[in-house]
Amino acid sequence: MSKEKVKIGIAGLGRIGKVHLENLIYRLPDAEVLVVMDINPELKELSTSLGVSKFYPNFQDLVDETRLDAIVICSPTDTHLEYIERAAIAGKHVFCEKPLSISVTEIDKIKSIIEKYRVKLQVGFNRRFDRNFVKLKSLVESGRIGDPHILKITSRDPAPPSLEYIISSGGMFMDMTIHDFDMARFITGSEVKEVFANGAVLVNPKIGEIGDIDTAIVTLTFQNGALATIDNSRQAVYGYDQRIEIFGSKGMSLVGNTYPDTHTIYDRTGGHTPPPLNFFMQRYTEAYLDEIKQFVHAIRYDKEVPVDAYDALRATQIARAARESLQKQKPIRLEY
Amino acid sequence: MSKEKVKIGIAGLGRIGKVHLENLIYRLPDAEVLVVMDINPELKELSTSLGVSKFYPNFQDLVDETRLDAIVICSPTDTHLEYIERAAIAGKHVFCEKPLSISVTEIDKIKSIIEKYRVKLQVGFNRRFDRNFVKLKSLVESGRIGDPHILKITSRDPAPPSLEYIISSGGMFMDMTIHDFDMARFITGSEVKEVFANGAVLVNPKIGEIGDIDTAIVTLTFQNGALATIDNSRQAVYGYDQRIEIFGSKGMSLVGNTYPDTHTIYDRTGGHTPPPLNFFMQRYTEAYLDEIKQFVHAIRYDKEVPVDAYDALRATQIARAARESLQKQKPIRLEY
Amino acid sequence: MSKEKVKIGIAGLGRIGKVHLENLIYRLPDAEVLVVMDINPELKELSTSLGVSKFYPNFQDLVDETRLDAIVICSPTDTHLEYIERAAIAGKHVFCEKPLSISVTEIDKIKSIIEKYRVKLQVGFNRRFDRNFVKLKSLVESGRIGDPHILKITSRDPAPPSLEYIISSGGMFMDMTIHDFDMARFITGSEVKEVFANGAVLVNPKIGEIGDIDTAIVTLTFQNGALATIDNSRQAVYGYDQRIEIFGSKGMSLVGNTYPDTHTIYDRTGGHTPPPLNFFMQRYTEAYLDEIKQFVHAIRYDKEVPVDAYDALRATQIARAARESLQKQKPIRLEY
Amino acid sequence: MSKEKVKIGIAGLGRIGKVHLENLIYRLPDAEVLVVMDINPELKELSTSLGVSKFYPNFQDLVDETRLDAIVICSPTDTHLEYIERAAIAGKHVFCEKPLSISVTEIDKIKSIIEKYRVKLQVGFNRRFDRNFVKLKSLVESGRIGDPHILKITSRDPAPPSLEYIISSGGMFMDMTIHDFDMARFITGSEVKEVFANGAVLVNPKIGEIGDIDTAIVTLTFQNGALATIDNSRQAVYGYDQRIEIFGSKGMSLVGNTYPDTHTIYDRTGGHTPPPLNFFMQRYTEAYLDEIKQFVHAIRYDKEVPVDAYDALRATQIARAARESLQKQKPIRLEY
Repeated sequence: MSKEKVKIGIAGLGRIGKVHLENLIYRLPDAEVLVVMDINPELKELSTSLGVSKFYPNFQDLVDETRLDAIVICSPTDTHLEYIERAAIAGKHVFCEKPLSISVTEIDKIKSIIEKYRVKLQVGFNRRFDRNFVKLKSLVESGRIGDPHILKITSRDPAPPSLEYIISSGGMFMDMTIHDFDMARFITGSEVKEVFANGAVLVNPKIGEIGDIDTAIVTLTFQNGALATIDNSRQAVYGYDQRIEIFGSKGMSLVGNTYPDTHTIYDRTGGHTPPPLNFFMQRYTEAYLDEIKQFVHAIRYDKEVPVDAYDALRATQIARAARESLQKQKPIRLEY
Repeated sequence: MSKEKVKIGIAGLGRIGKVHLENLIYRLPDAEVLVVMDINPELKELSTSLGVSKFYPNFQDLVDETRLDAIVICSPTDTHLEYIERAAIAGKHVFCEKPLSISVTEIDKIKSIIEKYRVKLQVGFNRRFDRNFVKLKSLVESGRIGDPHILKITSRDPAPPSLEYIISSGGMFMDMTIHDFDMARFITGSEVKEVFANGAVLVNPKIGEIGDIDTAIVTLTFQNGALATIDNSRQAVYGYDQRIEIFGSKGMSLVGNTYPDTHTIYDRTGGHTPPPLNFFMQRYTEAYLDEIKQFVHAIRYDKEVPVDAYDALRATQIARAARESLQKQKPIRLEY
Repeated sequence: MSKEKVKIGIAGLGRIGKVHLENLIYRLPDAEVLVVMDINPELKELSTSLGVSKFYPNFQDLVDETRLDAIVICSPTDTHLEYIERAAIAGKHVFCEKPLSISVTEIDKIKSIIEKYRVKLQVGFNRRFDRNFVKLKSLVESGRIGDPHILKITSRDPAPPSLEYIISSGGMFMDMTIHDFDMARFITGSEVKEVFANGAVLVNPKIGEIGDIDTAIVTLTFQNGALATIDNSRQAVYGYDQRIEIFGSKGMSLVGNTYPDTHTIYDRTGGHTPPPLNFFMQRYTEAYLDEIKQFVHAIRYDKEVPVDAYDALRATQIARAARESLQKQKPIRLEY
Repeated sequence: MSKEKVKIGIAGLGRIGKVHLENLIYRLPDAEVLVVMDINPELKELSTSLGVSKFYPNFQDLVDETRLDAIVICSPTDTHLEYIERAAIAGKHVFCEKPLSISVTEIDKIKSIIEKYRVKLQVGFNRRFDRNFVKLKSLVESGRIGDPHILKITSRDPAPPSLEYIISSGGMFMDMTIHDFDMARFITGSEVKEVFANGAVLVNPKIGEIGDIDTAIVTLTFQNGALATIDNSRQAVYGYDQRIEIFGSKGMSLVGNTYPDTHTIYDRTGGHTPPPLNFFMQRYTEAYLDEIKQFVHAIRYDKEVPVDAYDALRATQIARAARESLQKQKPIRLEY
């Protein structure tokens, strides 16, 4: 082993912060969480009960912990730039939840900071670590599919978030489809050249009133010539629907949803299977573990992180182009 | 083409007689039905409406039709021996519905008659013509499965027949499992050496009162060393359940039920598919067509029929052994 | 029964003409084919062998057959307008293969002719009769899916047609996607408001050289607010791929491909299933039967035909808009 | 929480001991492993590297650790009786790997010991904790299946163990089918009344030479009237095959194998899915976690353990009856 356990601090103990904390504590023997930070001091108790005794209510104290190798940032999006900069100055590696920022300019700044201070930055595109999507990518990379021609991503949430969240998140393309834009780049291994977005308000008219959509079909053209179609809905009553299909010159492969068990029951009305794992906390349980494991590994063995600021930048640019396409009702060409 | 259309008479215009008649008229251009016979004169109208003008209420008139090449016998089981003998004497080829007879001695007689008068006799084991089971057999024959080790047949009816029918039919092994015994020989290509039968009355106590069972598991040992398990029920509430699995040294293959369409619907409660095709008239529609087509073909080109009296004999012997095993509560060895 | 057998003449004994002829002869007892017409006199022999003794090499002779109730037109697209007009003048009902015409103006003319002479005209959109797609439509109509939000059609051919055919057919949208445009209207029960087409030449550069594409993603917006995405390829190496998924406020349903049998085989490398039925002659065998059956039924009982000139017009308008969208690289709004 | 972390010692650090150790350390926050014992002193290093500093080469030292609440016994079967007795005398609860013993008399003794010293004993029938089988059982218990009529268990290993292991393990029924016998009782909730075993040597003749079989079909009759069929092979070339189907008066349910991912790939030869998870360490990863979690829970909250010596006794009795049935070639009735 090249070094001791990787020492980590966590900033933000919301739902996703707790996921990372538990994975780091219980399932990653080569990492150690020394301290948790959250602006809400009441979370100290939770932190303690999970076995982390040190708790700070402000970020700078975390940065000042000299023993830390890295900081996992799970605080709100508008804190990301500042927190990353402070961490980088202190020489800490950073894992930052998505979206890095909803502003392309800010992401550019983050990239410069990271490069300047020579720290690692991994972005929380957790789906890249889903074993099913990883398998699809490997089939493309190995040439088993041939040249990719058509990519189809179905990505539907079981229920819309609150209107407050939608407003703050930057809208459906920035909050939800951004995962699919990243997947599109990940699976095809090619950059997006052009975007056309179709959108509609079919789930909840209030989402339309605040200027967003809840249903969309986005088509992409890649630099390698392939085409993609992404379909989204904020509300699939049957649960979290996450499927991808890649079609190429030598074959086609698709991955489906994952289920709590493999049972089918047959009765007078037919065959019945359970709803898919619902929601991302269940569907991507192992993916969350794998992403943080790879982050720890990258630090421990000084390797490149598997998803970086460049990936965040690209996905964000596509999301912005999708929004522009929807507004102008025409395809938008991406300039890099 | 080696000869004119094959000229056929049908004896017995019950449910299955009607299936053969319609297949011969509408779907087999190289056959021609000249005459129908049924002891019920009221069926003349049905026969005429289907386009066969000649109708007799007794079998000898049918046999005396000199133009006929063959007779399709769909009359009750207790007429089979007599009808086949008369047809054979007149030089007519015979297609006879299953069971040829529930008596091994009678089947032996039928075999002798057929050999003496040198006519063809095909027995109506329709499942041998199901495209799924044919595929399984071909996988075994081609060596794709390797040496067969374990055969599993699931065969469950959607609902029990009337008690009258059960009494007259010779019981579950003779009426229902006999198809599975034939399938076991067909798929493995080996003869059965030993039978052990487990039975129970779980569906309807009245079936027990008349001395039969409605649920069974039968295990078979084959001469080539393979083992088989057959499970039967007179009542699968979800419909006609007909599945076979063959496991061998190089792999395993299974065929499932067939469905009215390929749709799945997903709602709050999960995924739902329709019940399987129900009952044998739907599930084996194409198999019924294929069996009679091959019979016509065997006559036209003077080939061997695909299922003969020997097959009927073997299946009947196994059924009788199963009954004996159930009564004596021990495995029964078959002597050929 | 309201009348005698429906008397039919067939114009054009190519591949699809033969399908209709055989269905009418062997599987539709209430229809009768009296005469076949084809400009190639050598096809007389085929016609005779199938049991139709009367054969003409020119269309007018067919029209002059006073006993005919209807004419099934399977001749090249450029004969459709003329043949339909002559048939209509003679008071014959018409079944005409798709495309009715690749010109919207011509279809308008055909509509006027049909209305003027008060004959029925059914158009050969055979997929509307596929039991799987019929099931999907019934799920939408019954409200089981709720309001339709997203429709996804995957439609890929196993191999491209000849370049000559592509040139004459009017291109991929007019020849191939037109089926999907019709399906989109059929399943959703709504009219298309806007079309955006993405296209690429990824299969064969020669297809590009003659001005066509071989890969496409088309998105549609419907008047009822729903969105659709259609993906096409001229070459799916794994076979004819025809799947549809409809997603709505109450659930989602999808139908898959159909297969020669239900077997799966498992060996050291995993589980294996056979390729889907390939090509349309196999996949849509029963759909071809059903469409002509419903045509015969519509004549016999004087009912409306299930697919008419209006449907052909709409599908053609969408195909033309898709072509325009591809050329102009912008979404095209349909004006009716 | 009712008490402190449960303090555990592990006896035996072979393959399965390591699984339990890792689960206890990394995934069960309310347990703590204080000490590991193995007669092989070289395993101390492994133990230390996993974070357990205390290591003993003999069992009595483990028992003398007064702080321990429980001992997890993963040592060879012939040590079980002695170890359990010593642990019980010292008032330690015990988790013991299967088989508890291959002798019914010994299991009876173990039962008495446990009762006398009032400690808990959980037996390692890990499959009872597989989420799929748990689901099946819950469907039976909830009445969703109705009265159970037929149970079908397919249980095939990917490759036979060494001949040495086979000899020491007590043979296929005692080593392998014993899991299925336990499953049969678990799923149906009824006791086995009669056993009939068919066996064959089809995989490796050497297995026959040492007096064992490698292929079997066992049929069971339950006290509640249901029937079961179990089929086993020591070698399924396509991998670990673990499926169960339960058929009852109201419906049928089946659970299939589990897979590394959900992908299917389609190419010229058809559709292809990966082999199932292989072997028990992968298939039952989560089941191993759940069983030890429930053991810890039973100690912490003083609840009954979910699988006890009585269950081990019953499964062993059935296995012995199966062996007797095979030898005597007749069904064996179980006397309790």
